[in-house]
Amino acid sequence: MTTTFFTPVQSGIKEVEALMRTQVDANQHPDLKAALDHLMSAGGKRIRPTLGLLVGHMLGGNHEKLVILGGAVEMLHTATLVHDDLIDGALLRRGTPTLNARWSPAATVLTGDFLFARAAKLAAEADYLPLMKLFAETLAIIVGGELTQMFAAHGSLNRENYYQRIFAKTASLFEMSTLAAAMISTEDESIRAALKAYGHETGMAFQIVDDILDYTGDQGAVGKPLGSDLLNGLVTLPAIYYAEGHPDDPDVRAIPEGGWTDNERVARLVGRIRASDAIQQAMAEAQAHVERALQILEPFHPSTERDALDELARYIVDRSF
Amino acid sequence: MTTTFFTPVQSGIKEVEALMRTQVDANQHPDLKAALDHLMSAGGKRIRPTLGLLVGHMLGGNHEKLVILGGAVEMLHTATLVHDDLIDGALLRRGTPTLNARWSPAATVLTGDFLFARAAKLAAEADYLPLMKLFAETLAIIVGGELTQMFAAHGSLNRENYYQRIFAKTASLFEMSTLAAAMISTEDESIRAALKAYGHETGMAFQIVDDILDYTGDQGAVGKPLGSDLLNGLVTLPAIYYAEGHPDDPDVRAIPEGGWTDNERVARLVGRIRASDAIQQAMAEAQAHVERALQILEPFHPSTERDALDELARYIVDRSF
Repeated sequence: MTTTFFTPVQSGIKEVEALMRTQVDANQHPDLKAALDHLMSAGGKRIRPTLGLLVGHMLGGNHEKLVILGGAVEMLHTATLVHDDLIDGALLRRGTPTLNARWSPAATVLTGDFLFARAAKLAAEADYLPLMKLFAETLAIIVGGELTQMFAAHGSLNRENYYQRIFAKTASLFEMSTLAAAMISTEDESIRAALKAYGHETGMAFQIVDDILDYTGDQGAVGKPLGSDLLNGLVTLPAIYYAEGHPDDPDVRAIPEGGWTDNERVARLVGRIRASDAIQQAMAEAQAHVERALQILEPFHPSTERDALDELARYIVDRSF
Repeated sequence: MTTTFFTPVQSGIKEVEALMRTQVDANQHPDLKAALDHLMSAGGKRIRPTLGLLVGHMLGGNHEKLVILGGAVEMLHTATLVHDDLIDGALLRRGTPTLNARWSPAATVLTGDFLFARAAKLAAEADYLPLMKLFAETLAIIVGGELTQMFAAHGSLNRENYYQRIFAKTASLFEMSTLAAAMISTEDESIRAALKAYGHETGMAFQIVDDILDYTGDQGAVGKPLGSDLLNGLVTLPAIYYAEGHPDDPDVRAIPEGGWTDNERVARLVGRIRASDAIQQAMAEAQAHVERALQILEPFHPSTERDALDELARYIVDRSF
């Protein structure tokens, strides 16, 4: 798979990764050092720092500060993944064993905390108070969202809850990346607001597509069974659309009352959701977010970076990552 | 027990506690809200915010910012306790059940993360970048210390390791409280350095006394069995002094090779340490830290706050909290 929107930031991303590696002290215990190195390097597509670098460069921002921002955002993201895997009891992520699978919960908790601490320290190194505030607020939103998800009634078919959840889980950090990059690069409030909105739209689209892939994805690539969200009591957009279209389906009606704990019932429901037009409806909603993101970019002067942001937005609904 | 050094900051501490409570949103799940309220209110002596308020008021600093600092420091402290209890598997702290005893590890991890996030958000609200940097650095030191402790060889009789550990565990946050309060209150670098050193000395003394109480304390008040540190492979100052004085004691020689896992051996050793002069030697070392703290205060103009800081330092070696 060749994606070209990474091209303009390829060297910037390498700098972000090098910066992240410097956060691992040489005098740490070899096991810990190995785990941190692994976490830092096995890091997916670096979509969050890519967003920041593209936005910042489009607006002529300071490259060094944008690299620091990218490192802080990606380390914050990595920290939340480490704690998430512990919370979910996940043993694999992207096909490789999680820290949680190989270590004690205690070591996993502390490694996540360490990444939080270093992410905050990096954010502080940008020497820009509004960035620190945004960083702290975003961390509070992400953790608050996870807590709500844990304490909220499982199996809830509520659309509003869903949007709040995916904002906290994904869109908040996308939004932080683009807004912080804009704040570093321009004083113009309308430009900042526009790029914040671009991050929001792409983040919402990204998570909706992620949730669709839980129903339609290649099991091997996704690394978990189809419908695993629903099996965990997590109702995502495809299930919400299906429920709205089939309010009398007994399996749908059972979900809020704990039906998600019944494997057979969930398997049946997942099959019906996949065969329904709920998947297309959810995808159309993701597509609408992408369209709004593209509209936001339109007034900006054409540039390599604007083109890349355009392409990145389109890629979100067309990806398998 | 009446302690008077709290008197000058009594109303300030109430403000700190009120500020901490505002960090718990009303729309949180009742169980979570109850747990957070409990964590925020069952908070010991508030020694860290007391340090900041006394130092800041002595130097004529802005009260509102000092209250924010106090809230951030105390929430950071609370967050580390929540994760510590999870890591240690502790079921009681100060005689009350920990979150860990009543909740799933997942909920405990997230509640700690939530407190971290809110502490960072509070720190950012002081609108002062150096404070945020200090906050991030201190968090990194604390977590780094816990990681080192987890990965380091247990039963190590190394004095340097011990000092590094108690700095990371306790003195770093004491030092942050006094330094940050000084930074908020004065531009004078020598005054800042002096109060940073005061925080360092009192913090080191505090943890040394804490470690002594693990050998000598009233079991009921401490809430854990005597010698529990050594039983966990944690060699503290009394054991280090004893080992230095009795290098040929076979129980001492066995400790680095895993002897701390042998309950009978540890019980015997704890008894011998208690009966030796190691306890007095460790206490004299704590006392020396206190003396240095008092010397640091000497050049400052007499004031209620200076007297209280004096008293606080003396109280550390004379306490049972």
